[in-house]
Amino acid sequence: MTAAIARGQGGDAPARLASALDYAVTPGGARIRPTLLLSVAIACGDDRPGVSDAAAVALELIHCASLVHDDLPCFDDSDLRRGKPTVHRAYSEPLAVLTGDSLIVMGFDVLARAGAADPLRALQLVSALATRTGMPMGICAGQGWESESQINLSAYHRAKTGALFIAATQMGAIAAGYEPEPWEELGARIGEAFQVADDLRDAVCAVEEIGKPVGQDVLHARPNAVKELGVQGAMKRLKDILGGAIASIPSCPGEAMLAEMVRRYAEKMTPGALSAPVASRV
Amino acid sequence: MTAAIARGQGGDAPARLASALDYAVTPGGARIRPTLLLSVAIACGDDRPGVSDAAAVALELIHCASLVHDDLPCFDDSDLRRGKPTVHRAYSEPLAVLTGDSLIVMGFDVLARAGAADPLRALQLVSALATRTGMPMGICAGQGWESESQINLSAYHRAKTGALFIAATQMGAIAAGYEPEPWEELGARIGEAFQVADDLRDAVCAVEEIGKPVGQDVLHARPNAVKELGVQGAMKRLKDILGGAIASIPSCPGEAMLAEMVRRYAEKMTPGALSAPVASRV
Repeated sequence: MTAAIARGQGGDAPARLASALDYAVTPGGARIRPTLLLSVAIACGDDRPGVSDAAAVALELIHCASLVHDDLPCFDDSDLRRGKPTVHRAYSEPLAVLTGDSLIVMGFDVLARAGAADPLRALQLVSALATRTGMPMGICAGQGWESESQINLSAYHRAKTGALFIAATQMGAIAAGYEPEPWEELGARIGEAFQVADDLRDAVCAVEEIGKPVGQDVLHARPNAVKELGVQGAMKRLKDILGGAIASIPSCPGEAMLAEMVRRYAEKMTPGALSAPVASRV
Repeated sequence: MTAAIARGQGGDAPARLASALDYAVTPGGARIRPTLLLSVAIACGDDRPGVSDAAAVALELIHCASLVHDDLPCFDDSDLRRGKPTVHRAYSEPLAVLTGDSLIVMGFDVLARAGAADPLRALQLVSALATRTGMPMGICAGQGWESESQINLSAYHRAKTGALFIAATQMGAIAAGYEPEPWEELGARIGEAFQVADDLRDAVCAVEEIGKPVGQDVLHARPNAVKELGVQGAMKRLKDILGGAIASIPSCPGEAMLAEMVRRYAEKMTPGALSAPVASRV
């Protein structure tokens, strides 16, 4: 990550945009997507660690880009992100647009640079990342649903929250020489679980008055698992989803390790952990 | 191009963003960058027409994305582009940001899809396109210079106008199996010529009162070849640059054809042709 950003700041780069690139990716959040990607790669043997590292960096760059653009005045109009002013507040709106654009491009550049060792895998990674970033089913599509009067909720959630988790599992598999298709369900289910956990976190935070739900979402009428099912019902839903996630893990050398990882992720989502204040989006 | 956009609109895509993708790329401008790319590919033997076609589409998608973002209220705040309302006027600002993002991603996706036939060339294309799009020396950097108080003019022009012409010549070469480095100068010089021709066009249009110079550029104090050198001086400058461009053409089977193409491009820039009203940016 640091190396990619440093390259982006090199040569005759304009200084403020160069600085904004670094600002947008530090401090990192939980880095949950690249961690998942690397876990899958390791479970699949990780025979090209240079390629899987590049894939993890590329995915996180795209995620950071999406946060910068989502925070813009025309979307969430957020003032704060990860405890500091958002990029458009700290730099300017033009520089926030350009920072997002540059980070998207950098994601693909990182994959191309790591590709010499295995051009075919690198190309598959470019394709998987593009599919889960752009239209018709990437995070751009997810955000695009918020401009529709009639929303296809399943397509919306799958694109908005699920897409980069699907990218994580599929890119981890590709980086280690596995076919991506069987890994889609694991990513989709972890994405769903993440969404329900987010709803639970908001609800618990509100009840205990530790913090207000962030509620910046443009889509005010967006469904919420806690509202639909109650806290206990949502907890059960989360458990079911994660059970399904474990069951969906494709056959690979590190299958048991991956299942254990998902189980630990589930434990983190218990009410005890939920009562601690957590950033709403990582 | 049409196939790529149709793919982006497929499946469960949100309808308005899907429609905006098509709106942003039609009607096309002069398509000067993909035409240059294909001319170089043909001059180099064009042994993989599927790859060079994909490269041309990818380059034009990135160019269209840059126009959509440049037109945004926080940059040029333009109402019209190619004779119709800009994307943010016709759809909305959020959809314009997402259209630009989606078209950038689509550019890289097109290259990955065409890559099966020759993964190494496809990866080189991803890398060349990323370099000329993002930071530190792509069109994002060019736009980023406009947020600086002290501008490195040569870096600014090379990135803002030159970058996608350099991408055109280098990607044409790569698509046909040639090394990209020797092709940088031709792209850079054609980019410079394009800039001077643009200045001339604005000046001649103003003199003959056919149309007002567009003058939307944020950088009000930006240097102009006609202001510096006068119309005759700028004409001579243009001729010199194109002479240099021809001299820089690397050895390849279609060297003479390419030289002829650049010569014709020069002819189009004569005062006679200049007096016709032309869109300021194509």
